[in-house]
Amino acid sequence: MPEPAEAMTALRERLGELDDLIQAAALAGWDQQTYMPPGGASARGEVLATLGRLAHARLTDPGLVALLAALAQDTGLGDVDARLVAAVGRDADRARRIPDRLVGDIARHTVVAQVAWHAARAADDFAPFRPALERHVELRRELAACFPEVAHPYDALLHAFEPGLTTERLRKVFTQMREGLIPLLGAITARAVPPPLPGPFPVARQRELALQIAAAHGFDTEHWRLDLAVHPFVQSLGPSDIRVTTFFDETTLTGLFAVMHEVGHGLYERQIDPALARTIAGTGTSLGIHESQSRLWENLVGRSEPFWRHWHPRLVQAFGAAALGGEDLEAFLRTINTVRPSPIRVEADEATYSLHVILRFELEVAMIEGTLAVADLPYAWNAGMQELLGVHVISDRVGVLQDIHWAYGELGYFPTYAIGNIVAAQLWTVIRRDLPALDEDLERGDTLALRRWLGDHVHRHGRLRTSGELLMDITGSELDARPFLRQLELKYGALYGLEGHPR
Amino acid sequence: MPEPAEAMTALRERLGELDDLIQAAALAGWDQQTYMPPGGASARGEVLATLGRLAHARLTDPGLVALLAALAQDTGLGDVDARLVAAVGRDADRARRIPDRLVGDIARHTVVAQVAWHAARAADDFAPFRPALERHVELRRELAACFPEVAHPYDALLHAFEPGLTTERLRKVFTQMREGLIPLLGAITARAVPPPLPGPFPVARQRELALQIAAAHGFDTEHWRLDLAVHPFVQSLGPSDIRVTTFFDETTLTGLFAVMHEVGHGLYERQIDPALARTIAGTGTSLGIHESQSRLWENLVGRSEPFWRHWHPRLVQAFGAAALGGEDLEAFLRTINTVRPSPIRVEADEATYSLHVILRFELEVAMIEGTLAVADLPYAWNAGMQELLGVHVISDRVGVLQDIHWAYGELGYFPTYAIGNIVAAQLWTVIRRDLPALDEDLERGDTLALRRWLGDHVHRHGRLRTSGELLMDITGSELDARPFLRQLELKYGALYGLEGHPR
Repeated sequence: MPEPAEAMTALRERLGELDDLIQAAALAGWDQQTYMPPGGASARGEVLATLGRLAHARLTDPGLVALLAALAQDTGLGDVDARLVAAVGRDADRARRIPDRLVGDIARHTVVAQVAWHAARAADDFAPFRPALERHVELRRELAACFPEVAHPYDALLHAFEPGLTTERLRKVFTQMREGLIPLLGAITARAVPPPLPGPFPVARQRELALQIAAAHGFDTEHWRLDLAVHPFVQSLGPSDIRVTTFFDETTLTGLFAVMHEVGHGLYERQIDPALARTIAGTGTSLGIHESQSRLWENLVGRSEPFWRHWHPRLVQAFGAAALGGEDLEAFLRTINTVRPSPIRVEADEATYSLHVILRFELEVAMIEGTLAVADLPYAWNAGMQELLGVHVISDRVGVLQDIHWAYGELGYFPTYAIGNIVAAQLWTVIRRDLPALDEDLERGDTLALRRWLGDHVHRHGRLRTSGELLMDITGSELDARPFLRQLELKYGALYGLEGHPR
Repeated sequence: MPEPAEAMTALRERLGELDDLIQAAALAGWDQQTYMPPGGASARGEVLATLGRLAHARLTDPGLVALLAALAQDTGLGDVDARLVAAVGRDADRARRIPDRLVGDIARHTVVAQVAWHAARAADDFAPFRPALERHVELRRELAACFPEVAHPYDALLHAFEPGLTTERLRKVFTQMREGLIPLLGAITARAVPPPLPGPFPVARQRELALQIAAAHGFDTEHWRLDLAVHPFVQSLGPSDIRVTTFFDETTLTGLFAVMHEVGHGLYERQIDPALARTIAGTGTSLGIHESQSRLWENLVGRSEPFWRHWHPRLVQAFGAAALGGEDLEAFLRTINTVRPSPIRVEADEATYSLHVILRFELEVAMIEGTLAVADLPYAWNAGMQELLGVHVISDRVGVLQDIHWAYGELGYFPTYAIGNIVAAQLWTVIRRDLPALDEDLERGDTLALRRWLGDHVHRHGRLRTSGELLMDITGSELDARPFLRQLELKYGALYGLEGHPR
């Protein structure tokens, strides 16, 4: 075995190559969703498969494993190095324990299942998708069986996105959520629905305003881009090349909120310690923490009164008062914070969104446990929508077939969306304590102190702290839905003058 | 050794992976010149270096070499497989014979030399670049020494771009060129220079018209893109994903001609046999042949009377007669075929361009031979410009420092630009014989027969035929400058009514 310093150098060299392959694939993925002509799809599939295979081989290479094992024994490592070894060790361990055969089976079946899902959606009928989903569940059970040490097989799926989180914990937190959200929802929906914004919002001006807001949140043309894509997303290619995408539609301001959401994700990547570049630890630590950053900027900042005190006059200037239904800020805030149960997750508001996720989580766990047969999924879906959201689902297309995630076999992914809401609220409690002048800052359009706080406490660490460690370090608590519920109650109480809620 | 069929399958698997790495690098290069934010440069350099290293390792892998050696012995291979084995064998042989140490030295020195070139250009003084170029020449001599079997060391440099071509042959052809071009140039420049087009040519309309012409030349949005870049180029990512770039300037139609040029390159890649995808032979066979395709579309089609009989009325409609100095087609043709010696290669016209290249070729050969000291290069440059083009060079910035190629150490590259002109003319002679109705086609804006001819005779073969084989198969001749000279004499004779030239 080499000396520790040499071993760290050797590790960083290996990680550099691996990270470069991941970056090349990330660029290919970004291009596929933004600029690639349709004819390029098949060649792109080959390139992505090769890059993925080469990256996987490097992560599972016995030489890397030996290096990591030796370094894990070394008590003389500095804090950064020790955490890096631990983070990479978790990745390598997970990658090695899933046999190549299973990885291949999953990849091949995902292609088949997508075709089946598209056909089922076109027919508005779950039946043609059923066998494909059954096979996905079977494969995910096999995958879970590679990790016999977990308390619940679904834990093994969760850990792909949220290392260390357990099904048991999530159940408790989601029960808190259900119990708090359903009565709140009842109180809000008893009130009249605020009128929608009349529009129109010409796309060019939306883009201009979105870029102004983005700039106030840290976007600059030296390190960022804004492009169009059918489904908004962000892709970072290292901390100095952050690519936001959105979709503008002149009838709504959705694209503007999508930019705030994606810039929130992007800011996380942008503020990661540059010393973590080319280590595979220079990215967000989990999907849940990542989503907390996008939700924080989209909802806690971007739907707040202080924020719009600064930006609402600019909105009026850009689109005219008529497009906004007048110049009344309070009416505008009620409209952008409208709560209305809908069958569709991606159209859901801040209060109902997590209930969509909880339904999916419960169904996924039941399918993995075997207590819910895939054949019964549509009935369970429709019953759950009625129970959680009071929504009657009229067909599979707007019901159980609405998301593509299950066609990818991605069980364990949906919870991260709700975790994002929960974590954002937990962080927000600490932020408000640490930054007593935050409202005044936002009223001036100034986000510098907030960005610095996020950079110091969350962003810079990259993957050197797990989501659980990060949350404990900052809030002194595990995942906890109460701050989220409290904040929603306060906000909607004030906006809608709900009984028992301070106005 | 495996059975031949298995060996071919094994070869194609290896080539597939190699080609995917090359494609990933090609995308990263395209993105770097189009959309990458400046902050991404350093990470991009790492990604490109890693992809290049991994590709090089695959091309020089002993397993590949053994497979190629076995397959080269196999007399039962079909024509396509045998040619594929030969083409890949040439690449692998060249890659293996250049030691990694030298590859690394060249790569490292190229970074240093570029900095020196930029500094020298800023100072408008060759002196700070001299030591860097001296080292480049030294390194290229070392590289040439890896191929002791060539007749002239410069052959080894040429072969990177034009396998099989010799310095001796090129000297003969370039001598033909000089001897024909200098008197022609004298006759033309004795005439009055046609007035320039007044303009303006609004960028949006230029783009629209460029896309219409591109569509008539085979561009479609399913398989192509048009983007903006400072220096126009094309990048193919396989035959179904062709990315043209250009630069529009409202004072000239340069961007329009650049699109025709780049679409000519792109059409070559687009019409390569799809069965060659993922073999590293599914691309143009040499830079010279590639350039012949761009020049053919830009000059032989795009500056011809039949072509403009169709497009000139559309140009008038787009920009107005005033912008074009009137509606006279003949005057327009004289203007877009203006010949005027200039110190700058990239601004040169069809008649003077090759003389710029010949000068660079002669200087490169002399430096490699050691008969010209790098210290004497600026004097030799200025003397050559006077002799070949009658141009007085006022400073190094517009003289010996005008191109970045030597900062990259790219000796042997410049000749391919002139080879493009020569080959285009050789092909054109055969095309005019095979397609007697071509002028009528072009007058209708119809290029289908021409595209089919190029597809059948040149494009589909990809790298399965070397440039020499291709030229011999199609024209029955080696590289020969006479068709180029004859075509220029005819064209300028007609346009300018030169003595002794048919009007």
